[in-house]
Amino acid sequence: MRPYELSLADAAQAIASGELSPVELTDSVLARIEAVEGNLGAFVAVFADAARQAAGQAERDIAAGAHRGPLHGIPMGLKDLIDVQGLPTTASSRVREHHTARRDSTVAARLRGAGAILLGKTHTHEFAYGLTTPQTGNAWAPGRVAGGSSGGSAVAVAAGEATFALGTDTGGSIRVPSALNGVVGLKPTYGLVSRRGVTPLSWSLDHVGPITRTARDAELVLAALVGPDPGGPASPYVPPSGRPHRTDGDLTGLRVGVPRNHFFDRVAPEVAKAVRGALADLAGLGAVLVDIDIPMAEYLQATQWGLMVPEATAYHQRTLRSSPELYGPDVRVLLEAGELVPAGDYLRAQRSRTLMRRAWARLFDEVDIIAAPTVTSTAARRDQQTVRWPDGSEESVSDSYVRLSAPANITGLPSLSLPVGLDGTGLPIGMQLIGGPFAEAVLLSTGRIYEEARGAAPRLAPVAA
Amino acid sequence: MRPYELSLADAAQAIASGELSPVELTDSVLARIEAVEGNLGAFVAVFADAARQAAGQAERDIAAGAHRGPLHGIPMGLKDLIDVQGLPTTASSRVREHHTARRDSTVAARLRGAGAILLGKTHTHEFAYGLTTPQTGNAWAPGRVAGGSSGGSAVAVAAGEATFALGTDTGGSIRVPSALNGVVGLKPTYGLVSRRGVTPLSWSLDHVGPITRTARDAELVLAALVGPDPGGPASPYVPPSGRPHRTDGDLTGLRVGVPRNHFFDRVAPEVAKAVRGALADLAGLGAVLVDIDIPMAEYLQATQWGLMVPEATAYHQRTLRSSPELYGPDVRVLLEAGELVPAGDYLRAQRSRTLMRRAWARLFDEVDIIAAPTVTSTAARRDQQTVRWPDGSEESVSDSYVRLSAPANITGLPSLSLPVGLDGTGLPIGMQLIGGPFAEAVLLSTGRIYEEARGAAPRLAPVAA
Repeated sequence: MRPYELSLADAAQAIASGELSPVELTDSVLARIEAVEGNLGAFVAVFADAARQAAGQAERDIAAGAHRGPLHGIPMGLKDLIDVQGLPTTASSRVREHHTARRDSTVAARLRGAGAILLGKTHTHEFAYGLTTPQTGNAWAPGRVAGGSSGGSAVAVAAGEATFALGTDTGGSIRVPSALNGVVGLKPTYGLVSRRGVTPLSWSLDHVGPITRTARDAELVLAALVGPDPGGPASPYVPPSGRPHRTDGDLTGLRVGVPRNHFFDRVAPEVAKAVRGALADLAGLGAVLVDIDIPMAEYLQATQWGLMVPEATAYHQRTLRSSPELYGPDVRVLLEAGELVPAGDYLRAQRSRTLMRRAWARLFDEVDIIAAPTVTSTAARRDQQTVRWPDGSEESVSDSYVRLSAPANITGLPSLSLPVGLDGTGLPIGMQLIGGPFAEAVLLSTGRIYEEARGAAPRLAPVAA
Repeated sequence: MRPYELSLADAAQAIASGELSPVELTDSVLARIEAVEGNLGAFVAVFADAARQAAGQAERDIAAGAHRGPLHGIPMGLKDLIDVQGLPTTASSRVREHHTARRDSTVAARLRGAGAILLGKTHTHEFAYGLTTPQTGNAWAPGRVAGGSSGGSAVAVAAGEATFALGTDTGGSIRVPSALNGVVGLKPTYGLVSRRGVTPLSWSLDHVGPITRTARDAELVLAALVGPDPGGPASPYVPPSGRPHRTDGDLTGLRVGVPRNHFFDRVAPEVAKAVRGALADLAGLGAVLVDIDIPMAEYLQATQWGLMVPEATAYHQRTLRSSPELYGPDVRVLLEAGELVPAGDYLRAQRSRTLMRRAWARLFDEVDIIAAPTVTSTAARRDQQTVRWPDGSEESVSDSYVRLSAPANITGLPSLSLPVGLDGTGLPIGMQLIGGPFAEAVLLSTGRIYEEARGAAPRLAPVAA
């Protein structure tokens, strides 16, 4: 295995034992970027010299005995909504042409403190306001969409262009590209990870989280991200409670809720089949599958859009009025639509969210986690606008992509997407595990036990170099 | 002293010692209502028979040794936004002509449990959406406004028509009529007292609290109102922390912030003078006066209206569209204006509130409480539309009435209004004490020490019988 193929956990172990140096690892990943980036377009900018320099420093520090932990010397990508001091945060938008971040975001500072090495900034759908990331090709089939909005981060991790990455998620933007590129994405509980210094899309729905090749890797990154933010109230950090952290090798007694409605409606048959197969695997490991009914499902879409659209417009209003031509047409039309939303509609969406949160909270009296497909289908062609379902209905690709992931944004609940197989054309399929508030440990250990039981090493996308 | 003139504390003591029976007290108050209500119009409805019956029951229970505490056998008024099982909650509106409350509000149930006796429901400005309460005359001068929206409750307490009452406060609706009628009004910390079963005006600004003749009385009522609400999340009750509860007889070392800006701007000279006199009294009791600057004062009005107007409309939208003619013209125009507010404006008001809350929280690093006038002037004539200030500016009566009280609604901080004297025409003047979150005990004990030092018994309004 070449270094760029290693999982974060394996790379960290090799660095800790002295078998691998941060310089070798970084050079290997940079060479991989050199080889495949032309086909993929995952990065807005790669800082090869700075990364090599940081890798050299990490090598010397570790040799001198100052090993900071599992992220020390590990090369990563950051979605280009995340401020890094002295670098532009382009948000993949012409609006940010002359931008420079004055200070690190909290997450960038935390990862820097943990010794991770910044390779570059990865493409986002413009200002995170879309589900495809048009600049980037899918790691498994570059003619297909990367998914979005954290498309660059997911493709980089899937293709070996970064050992891990960060994304942001307002309606599915970590989990959708993770599912479509066969990697692991975690949207943590609302507020657990600081958003200070991260460009907002919709502040009441936004989350920052890791994209990795395994659930074990996501645990390592999350541990570095979480903690009180001395910067203040941008992060309403709540320390994780004493929820059971399963470290044993099976899932005996874990109650896994399987939705009867919403999450398997209008889902591609191959996706449903792969997820049902993964559910059978969980049951084989001791989990108890429990049928559940998703409350208020018919209000999910209106609630998500009713919150997101006016909040996004509020953030962009000045620029939208002064320089509308700088936005791409798809984003601009959404922002302009936001100017027309009456306060009453926004208030109804807020009240609907409150009711949904209460109703979902009651689900976790019956089950420990909920399992469902992450996305309704595998990656669409880049020119595809709509999806047609067997019941004859048609849906925009974006609507279909956000449909199953948005519930965890509205409710603020943690959700982990795991790869569970490929469809007949070789495209990845994701399953999400949703937990109660701050139940990240349960999701991640379930994911890890599932991965270990499957046995296979994480498989990189077979992208042509 | 006749029983209806007694403070709640004195009446409770007389009942506990057997000197006074609940029946005597209730009869005395009902006779007072009979005598003065024609001039004042404080009540929507008086339930004399039911009150006498309840008083008889209280008398028998107390005689049998089942004394429930200081509220047992005390006659009270409830603002007619507060549900009492089996009675209409009219909100002083034609919209509620055929209304009956199916169950008690949490506060009504708590007061019933404490043994208080319901005399009647008191007038509110229609749906609490105004500062005058046009059905009701000021207790000190019936040709002047009662203030609002809890005008009926304040007038009843001031005129001896109830030993205490409850009001609600969205922009000053407990404190404004309390100040204008020479009684004590407490708006507690946001969420401390349950609003379950209380008709909302603007749910992010609404509070329920006591109107009494003394700060000591307000302590007794608040104690009965506060507590976890088993009914659920309508009340985000947070138990009071261990803030110092001053029980000693002076105020040595209490840091009292005196605003340099906003709270003494465009205030009637006699009001400013009376409040400065009360501040000197506090200093004489050992308090340290500290000049402070109110942050973001120029955004207070836009923030208050920006939150209140769309939230009020959201609650009324269906009725407003089906039966607009049932609302009074002043309320209808505000509700219709709310239909036109864009979500972006509401969002800006929410963000402004967040910034204000943070900035105000820092004030309480420097001071324990803040003292200021409650209202800019004494009670206006009932036909008066505007106030003219010495600087030549003109302001609507409503805008001027809400100007000094709204900050505690926006920030959610507790505020206690105390009578501090009369102007040259014999109209009462109020001072408000604002504290940090859940600092009710500090406000109330400061008020009590101030009252005790002044020595005078609470003075009822000299209303002509």
